[in-house]
Formats: sequence, structure tokens, C-alpha cells
Amino acid sequence: MSQGSSVPEPVTAVMDTAGAWLVRGLAEVETGLSEAVDRTGDLADRGTATLSAGGKRMRPMLVILCAGPDGGAPTIRAAVAVELIHTASLVHDDVLDRAPLRRGVPTIFSTDGRQTATSVGDALFAEAFGLLSRSGDMESVGTLSSTAVDLVRGELMQRAAAFDMELSEADYFTRCQLKTGSLFSAACVLGGQTGGAGDLEAMAGFGARVGLAFQLLDDVLDISGPADRTGKARGTDLLDGTVTLPVIEAIRTDESIAGIGMRDLDETSAGVLCDRIEETGALERVRSRALDLIGDAKSVLADSGLDRERVELLELVADGVVLRYS
Amino acid sequence: MSQGSSVPEPVTAVMDTAGAWLVRGLAEVETGLSEAVDRTGDLADRGTATLSAGGKRMRPMLVILCAGPDGGAPTIRAAVAVELIHTASLVHDDVLDRAPLRRGVPTIFSTDGRQTATSVGDALFAEAFGLLSRSGDMESVGTLSSTAVDLVRGELMQRAAAFDMELSEADYFTRCQLKTGSLFSAACVLGGQTGGAGDLEAMAGFGARVGLAFQLLDDVLDISGPADRTGKARGTDLLDGTVTLPVIEAIRTDESIAGIGMRDLDETSAGVLCDRIEETGALERVRSRALDLIGDAKSVLADSGLDRERVELLELVADGVVLRYS
Repeated sequence: MSQGSSVPEPVTAVMDTAGAWLVRGLAEVETGLSEAVDRTGDLADRGTATLSAGGKRMRPMLVILCAGPDGGAPTIRAAVAVELIHTASLVHDDVLDRAPLRRGVPTIFSTDGRQTATSVGDALFAEAFGLLSRSGDMESVGTLSSTAVDLVRGELMQRAAAFDMELSEADYFTRCQLKTGSLFSAACVLGGQTGGAGDLEAMAGFGARVGLAFQLLDDVLDISGPADRTGKARGTDLLDGTVTLPVIEAIRTDESIAGIGMRDLDETSAGVLCDRIEETGALERVRSRALDLIGDAKSVLADSGLDRERVELLELVADGVVLRYS
Repeated sequence: MSQGSSVPEPVTAVMDTAGAWLVRGLAEVETGLSEAVDRTGDLADRGTATLSAGGKRMRPMLVILCAGPDGGAPTIRAAVAVELIHTASLVHDDVLDRAPLRRGVPTIFSTDGRQTATSVGDALFAEAFGLLSRSGDMESVGTLSSTAVDLVRGELMQRAAAFDMELSEADYFTRCQLKTGSLFSAACVLGGQTGGAGDLEAMAGFGARVGLAFQLLDDVLDISGPADRTGKARGTDLLDGTVTLPVIEAIRTDESIAGIGMRDLDETSAGVLCDRIEETGALERVRSRALDLIGDAKSVLADSGLDRERVELLELVADGVVLRYS
């Protein structure tokens, strides 16, 4: 994502292609996010700072696209709710990671402390459910609730496996599904539930695969940097003890990497480890796996029963996930 | 609450009077709480330990009583959801306070660390909304959502005013309404929404007053102890920098108390401060204010349109709040 631009790249690409309904929908999401944050009252300033730090709005875009041009207020509310849950989980993660930066700007944790950050996360969480309740669509509340539990389970799984260089690929993928795939999948399902016709299972499958690819590439970016593009230091995951697919892949080529004590890393040695991982060709292999997932996602999408316009736009979003990292 | 008994005192008093429907309802709430925790998967053991540490279940009881004998599955779900939100907020508060004990047993924070505790709180939060969604009653989701935001605002307000010996009585009451009154009020409203007839506004007013009285007496108990009854050390609020009505009342009699540096307190000097507050007669005056609130609550209840049995039972609950502390 380029710094300073009001609309991030992958969004722009899809918006150039889509009809006015997508542009309007995304603008309404921004308004809805501001309103939801305003409703939390005293917390507003802090919450707004984080929300306006420009996430990629991938999840709201998936909600709107899966709903299609016929998605009305319930679709927008679902899109806002999904982004609020995402943001709430980031705010809490930043507390747990004691993270100084997020999206290139100081975290609520760093400016206001862990207490305010924990509370702001809770409030955004509650707002998300309150918002969905206004649509009177109970299925959506259920979908979002179980996804929120998935996010938590993924986060706990990651922390339980911290500093474990023997993490299996299967456990890595389970964690990614919980941490990222689940909310992407829910975004698509919520779009389907609040909008036009389409096979919900196919949309869920598409979302989950795009989410996994997104996470894989995010994990590549943590190793490859550069920091001025990612908004955080290279090797941040390694310093947190988070073993990712690039590490697992690198160990397959160079077993000696498994012997590195992750607990002893500092910024310099983490940078050296990033270089070593890159030298094994692991990043290309993970990128290739992500591309395969995007291909799978598109195949699943073909069976979704969505109209041609929406399929093409969703394919653009899926491609955008990869392009962002090329 | 007496340690070791499976059913806490105030519950017993009401249950002796009520018909079988209340006993059955509370048993179903316990089952529902276990099931909700089980659904969070990996987190189950920890969550169960906290939930089974025996809260007073005041809030679920209010839900069930306000719903009356005709409250079915939606009432039980609402009662469970309210208790889950309450528990989630306690789990997060314990993280922020670094509290070793809650209800006399070790907190999740102390046994599993802040990361797990934060995640468990989030999961319980999400489960609460998921549960309500199954009833298809959107009003309930909205009620619970805005109450959850209130809890957060109250918590933040408390932290913003930490160590401020000049806290006004008005600010104290606003905070108590957000932290405690709001969820008690919501419990009554959710009961009314899911059960038999009755004036929701009157029920909300009753709940808010009982909640305020509950908080006032909780604040008295922090000063008076004894620790083996409260499950936490005497003066815990003072050590956390939380200025409560007993402190405000004490300063009215003995201005020199306002000059005490709360930041410098240790367990011994906090105990001495508790004695000084008690000597001013502040605890009796706060107890008397709480009694007035209970009286107000009963007056409001008289206009609720609830049948005689429910009114009597709710009055018993209100009296139980005071009796607990006499």
C-alpha cells in the first residue's frame, strides 16, 4: 500500500473496472466506520486515528462485491462490521505484541497504553455486533460471531507455537485459516447473505482461499520487506517468535536454519536470518503456493452462480492480492 | 458469598421463594454457560475454571425473573449472554489490573498470562452475541451491544480518573452507571423482551438502581473487607488508584484524607487508609445511600406492570444485594 494516498492500490484497480455501485459502497463503508467509532463516545479520537490509518479495506470490498449492485444498507452494515472486527483484533494484537507501529503509524497501544487499547478493541467489537443487529439478519450475527471466535483461536494457536522451529505446515495452515481465512470467508458469505443470489458455499470457499493467499504473502513480505512499504521492521514476525511458511520452506532447503535460537534474535540478527531465508528460494516457493491458492479460488468462484461482472471483479481482487507483492 | 457452597446465598433466598421455573432456569443457565465455553474450543479449560468459580449470577437471575415463568429458550440464551459479557469484561479487567485473584481463585491472567486472558475475554464476548443471534431477536443484540460499549466506557473512565482524589460524586455515579448499572438494566430489559408482558422502561430503571446499589456496596466491601469474604485483599481499589464513594464521603468529614498520595500506598498503608475511611462513618453513609437506591428501585418496580409473584421475587433480589453486606 502506498503511503499518503487516500485509496490504496488494489482498491483502485477494482474500482476502475467496477460500476459506480462499488465506489459508492466503499464510500458508505468509510462513513459507516466513522459513525461506528463516534458511537463509542470518549474513545472516538483514538479509534478514528487507527481506522483512518488506511487499511486496505479488502474485507469490506469482498462483502460489497459478493452482494453485488443490489446490496443495500444491510450490505454496508455487514461490510463495516467485518472491518470493525478486523480492526478490533488488530488493536488487541498490538497490545499483546507491544507493537509500536501498524500501517506505518503509531498503534493505539503505543500512544494511549495497553488499557485504553484493550478497551477500544472491546468497544469496536461490540459496535460490530450492534451494527449487524440493525439489519435484523440473525444469520449474519451468527456468522460474524463464530468468525470472531476463530480469530481468537488463531491468535492463541500462534502464541502457543511461538519460537517453535518445528511447527508443521499443517498447523501453519490451520492457524492461517483461523486468523485470516475465516474472516475473508465470512466477508464473502455476509455479502451473499445480504445481497443478490449466489452459492454461499462457493463464496465461502473463494474467500477462504484468497485469505490464505493473502496471509502467505503477508508472511513473505515480513521477510522481504522493505520496511517503508510494509510499515513495520523486516523480520518482525521472527522477533515475535512467529514461525511462518517461508521459515518452514527455508528449513527444507537449509536444515541448519532450524537450529537458530529465535529467542536470541535482535533486529540485526533477524535481518541476517531474513537474508538466509531469502537465499534458499523459500520466498519464491511460498509466492508460488499463494498463486496456486488464487487459482483455486478462481475455480471455486466459477461455480458460485454469480453473474459475470461480479466474478470478474472478484477475480481482480484475488489478483490484486498477488500483485501487491510482486 | 460463602466459599465452597455450590449456590451462593442471595440466589438461595430467592430460589426458596420462587417456583420451580427459577431453579430450572438457573440450572439451564449453568448448562448454557458450559456449552458456550466449550464452543470456544482450545480455550475451554481456562474459561470453564473462571466461569465455574461461582459468580453470584445476579444478572442471569434478573433476566429470568423479569421474563417470568413464560420465558423459554430465548430467555435462557439472554441470561447466558449477559453473564458471558460480564465474565469477559472481568477477564479483561484482570489483565489490565494484573489481578492475581478473582472470586477467591487465581485469575486466567495469573495462571495463563495476559495473552491467553485477552483472547479468552474476546472469545466469550463473541460467544455472547452468537448465542443471542440464535433467538432471532435483534433488539436483544442491540441492547447487549450498547451495554458492552458502556462497560468499556466505564472502565476507561475509571482508569482516566485513577489516583484523582478530587473525583466528583457526579463522575463517580456516571462511571458506576456505565460499569454496573447498564448491564443490570440490560439484564432486566432482555428478560422483558424475551418473556412475558411488562413495562420495559420500568424494568430498565429498576435494574439500573439495583446495579448502582450493588456497586456502592461493592465499594464499601473493598474498604471494610474481610478479605476471606471478598476473595481479594482489603483496599484493592485504593491500591489500583480507584477513588470510590466511600473515599469521597470520608473526605467530606476529614479533608486531610484528600492529601494522601494514593500512588505511594502499599498494602499496609492501604489498610491504614481503610481504617481512617471507616472511622469517618463514610461506610454507613454509603450503605444508607445504597439502601435509598434499593427503595427507589422498588418504587419503580411497582409501576412495571409485572405480576405480584415477579415483583416480590425481584424485591427479594434487591434486598439480597443489601443483605449480602449487612
